[in-house]
Amino acid sequence: MTQFMNKKEDIVTDAVDGIIAASGGKLARLDGYPHIRVVVRNDWDKSKVALVSGGGSGHEPAHAGFVGEGMLTAAVCGDVFASPSVDAVLAGILAVTGSAGCLLIVKNYTGDRLNFGLAAERAKAFGLDVSMVVVDDDVALPDLPQARGVAGTLFVHKIAGALADRGVSLKEIAERVEKVISGTKTIGMSLDTCTVPGSPKETRIPKGMAELGLGIHGEAGVEQIQYTNAKQAMGAVVAKLADHMGDGNHVALLNNLGGASVLEMAVLTNELAHSDIAGKLKWLIGPASMVTSLDMRGFSVSVYASDDEELETLSHPTSLSAWPGVSEITPVTVLNLPDGLAPIKPLPSEHQETRDFLIKCCEVLIESESDLNALDAKSGDGDTGSTLAGASRALISTMDTLPLADHTQLYRAIGQELSQAMGGSSGVLLAIFFAAAGDAASSGLSMTSSLKAGLVRMQEVGGAKLGDRTMVDALLPALDALNDGWDMAANAARAGADHTATLVKANAGRATYINAQQLEGHTDPGAEAVARLFEHLQG
Amino acid sequence: MTQFMNKKEDIVTDAVDGIIAASGGKLARLDGYPHIRVVVRNDWDKSKVALVSGGGSGHEPAHAGFVGEGMLTAAVCGDVFASPSVDAVLAGILAVTGSAGCLLIVKNYTGDRLNFGLAAERAKAFGLDVSMVVVDDDVALPDLPQARGVAGTLFVHKIAGALADRGVSLKEIAERVEKVISGTKTIGMSLDTCTVPGSPKETRIPKGMAELGLGIHGEAGVEQIQYTNAKQAMGAVVAKLADHMGDGNHVALLNNLGGASVLEMAVLTNELAHSDIAGKLKWLIGPASMVTSLDMRGFSVSVYASDDEELETLSHPTSLSAWPGVSEITPVTVLNLPDGLAPIKPLPSEHQETRDFLIKCCEVLIESESDLNALDAKSGDGDTGSTLAGASRALISTMDTLPLADHTQLYRAIGQELSQAMGGSSGVLLAIFFAAAGDAASSGLSMTSSLKAGLVRMQEVGGAKLGDRTMVDALLPALDALNDGWDMAANAARAGADHTATLVKANAGRATYINAQQLEGHTDPGAEAVARLFEHLQG
Repeated sequence: MTQFMNKKEDIVTDAVDGIIAASGGKLARLDGYPHIRVVVRNDWDKSKVALVSGGGSGHEPAHAGFVGEGMLTAAVCGDVFASPSVDAVLAGILAVTGSAGCLLIVKNYTGDRLNFGLAAERAKAFGLDVSMVVVDDDVALPDLPQARGVAGTLFVHKIAGALADRGVSLKEIAERVEKVISGTKTIGMSLDTCTVPGSPKETRIPKGMAELGLGIHGEAGVEQIQYTNAKQAMGAVVAKLADHMGDGNHVALLNNLGGASVLEMAVLTNELAHSDIAGKLKWLIGPASMVTSLDMRGFSVSVYASDDEELETLSHPTSLSAWPGVSEITPVTVLNLPDGLAPIKPLPSEHQETRDFLIKCCEVLIESESDLNALDAKSGDGDTGSTLAGASRALISTMDTLPLADHTQLYRAIGQELSQAMGGSSGVLLAIFFAAAGDAASSGLSMTSSLKAGLVRMQEVGGAKLGDRTMVDALLPALDALNDGWDMAANAARAGADHTATLVKANAGRATYINAQQLEGHTDPGAEAVARLFEHLQG
Repeated sequence: MTQFMNKKEDIVTDAVDGIIAASGGKLARLDGYPHIRVVVRNDWDKSKVALVSGGGSGHEPAHAGFVGEGMLTAAVCGDVFASPSVDAVLAGILAVTGSAGCLLIVKNYTGDRLNFGLAAERAKAFGLDVSMVVVDDDVALPDLPQARGVAGTLFVHKIAGALADRGVSLKEIAERVEKVISGTKTIGMSLDTCTVPGSPKETRIPKGMAELGLGIHGEAGVEQIQYTNAKQAMGAVVAKLADHMGDGNHVALLNNLGGASVLEMAVLTNELAHSDIAGKLKWLIGPASMVTSLDMRGFSVSVYASDDEELETLSHPTSLSAWPGVSEITPVTVLNLPDGLAPIKPLPSEHQETRDFLIKCCEVLIESESDLNALDAKSGDGDTGSTLAGASRALISTMDTLPLADHTQLYRAIGQELSQAMGGSSGVLLAIFFAAAGDAASSGLSMTSSLKAGLVRMQEVGGAKLGDRTMVDALLPALDALNDGWDMAANAARAGADHTATLVKANAGRATYINAQQLEGHTDPGAEAVARLFEHLQG
């Protein structure tokens, strides 16, 4: 699959420059391109313990995205999935370390251990106080003496970052994060492999399978399991973690390995909150892409039994948008539905003249059913006549329940009835027309003005303007002429409807998807319906 | 491709519950599952203007992820890519609207306009003050009268959110965001289609092509173009935007459509910051997944010429982790490399006894070259002998430059030489050994104690313990015995080396990847080298 990059060998320097450009001037880099790619805080005065991390790239936002106030001081970025050189690490250490010293936070991979380890020794030769901790949180491989460092590294970055920010000494920070490291456990799962830039995608994971306990560099998982659904996937992950969890309130870190959608991560969050270990999980970091494996459609869960003081450091402020913060995991609050969803039923009332008028309108539309269907067949799916006739029949059958004597309420009641009886957009638009007209009538406007107000609102919502080949082309001129009597209104409606046959481009509604040749010469069925209504009412 | 979900019809309710579970109790939902999925602020007192948005799901974190202090009051979530019902929208409005009224922020799709529009009319019938704005920021389709609403909607959410938070009236908020809407322009690009849950993936975009101007529901782009690289992709996007940008300082919003890796987004950020419109871009929101299209490997850029007051509202605090904040786009600060990367060259000095000792050590290793290679061939790639012999030859050739009379400096100098002359892990480990020994010597420890300190450090970094089938198995007992003389040390080294032939499992180094049967009966070549050194030195 193609990816957004330029030359493969420039991907890390391009990305580092992008991260710095988006930092608002808070980050800088050392002048060591292409081989030395070190991101540092631009406002660092060396008065506190410096925290330096890094490793291979491809795990963004880790680690450059976590450089900033309250977290790391510098990140040393290797090639994708490759350890940075000793010189690069040393440059990072020398650039940020003052008399308070420096802590190297290293994920447990041979290359990183060696290169950071030797850089530490070289820095010590300059009289600098440098310590190194190695994060080995992955529980995927129980028998491997060297557990890998994966997303649990974030606990270390954040806790050490808060301690350093508060002026705690190097010795104490190192001791406290060693405790964090020994208590942090992580396992990952993926439905697909990642795509290494410039390399063909591996097709190791068959459709319908998931890999459990996989690394963050595309290493194969410990096992492939049948994938059923999100619940089962999270169940398999927490089962691996459960063996390693003691008592106490744990913080969970839910990490997107890069390619799961935000929607999927939300589903997984819900499963984690209802999983077998949920009783031990009190706080959550994420879901977010924190330590990714490029575009891997997978996730990892890290857990740590945090004491109150550590929790407080995890909650210590940082302005870094890559850090999602810590939230307490709470049961979902469900609020009662508000009153008013069931429409207000108006009191029925009788008014013979109104009843006769409405029934006549309905009959006109019922009689026009086949004509309107035939017109609609030219530009749509041929059901305008049936839709209007059906709504008319429904309106006639409900006549006894309408507030016929209260015209203000009547508009709204008709709108409500039409929105229920008619499917699709037209029902909603007519409901809006009558509801807005009712609003206007209730504020004392005349019938004509009220109907015009309804039309304005319907146009606002529906977006149809005059000339767009909709019912508006007949209704708008008719209402404009209505103060001059039904005859003038009917003439205007007819002229408007006929004019639609000359409009070769529809700008609203479904007919927008039809080409000009198909439309020419055919009146819009909605406009025709309006014209027929006015024509029959003029008598 | 398989996705993390349970039943397709539950994906939105599962995700909504996940979002609420991760909100730290700040969010709640209405009791309307499965059809009414409304996320509301749990701390909302209706004293300010309520902001309600929503639409189809599949765009997470939009919109539920933007419900919270300083942004939305409620989000109404439809099915994936489908508008929510009128009832759902009405429930949302009624749940959060007080006397200050409610603003509906709707993306310009027919379904959303109609359903939110009718819900607004129904809410008005309850006497509520409801306004609606329609966002139409997509410039992909210049001739379409109804531009779509896409990621630029976030400008509206954030600016309206800040204004509402400050107690600004509904009327004024609506007016001010109408200005924002008319000035916001967005266009998207993707290298691949998205995967709609439960549907097969569309293979519309051929390899090597990109779609420009595509929607957020998998709608096809306006055009397919040849994809070259990130620079060209961003160039095509900004070319479309440039036509719509006036003067003034613009804010850019760089949105991940869901499937681009964080690394790729950083590369795209760099390209945006160097694009043809860079001169007009002063601030950046993102890169981040804000209005996604499920797992689409694409991005969109939105621009808005913000005045100072609007910028201030965009920067108004919110605790929502989905909002990445606004940063000024600044040139990348490049700091000089620190002094000290070039190793300190010790002053050469002469000391015949030391010179003889070192040369003898080197000769032992050179003579052992083929034997050690043969041993290594059993468990590795057969080059241990050549590596050590090569380093020995290099050390001999550099003898005149070494500080032979200053043993403290000599350790470090040998370490430096070995790390340059030897490739791979062994060179780094020996460099660490000698550097740490030098440190110890400089603090006044004896040779034996200094070498032991070096060994401890090498083990810490390399991770090898006694019995792990490495050189440690010979070196550690030898150093332990060294105070009793070279003979005892040599005996201990030999016994340790021979013992490695009985260790059937390697726990460190490359031999970890070899199975037990292949190792049995073969001495570890590193341990053998150490034993031979001590044996030849005892004489």
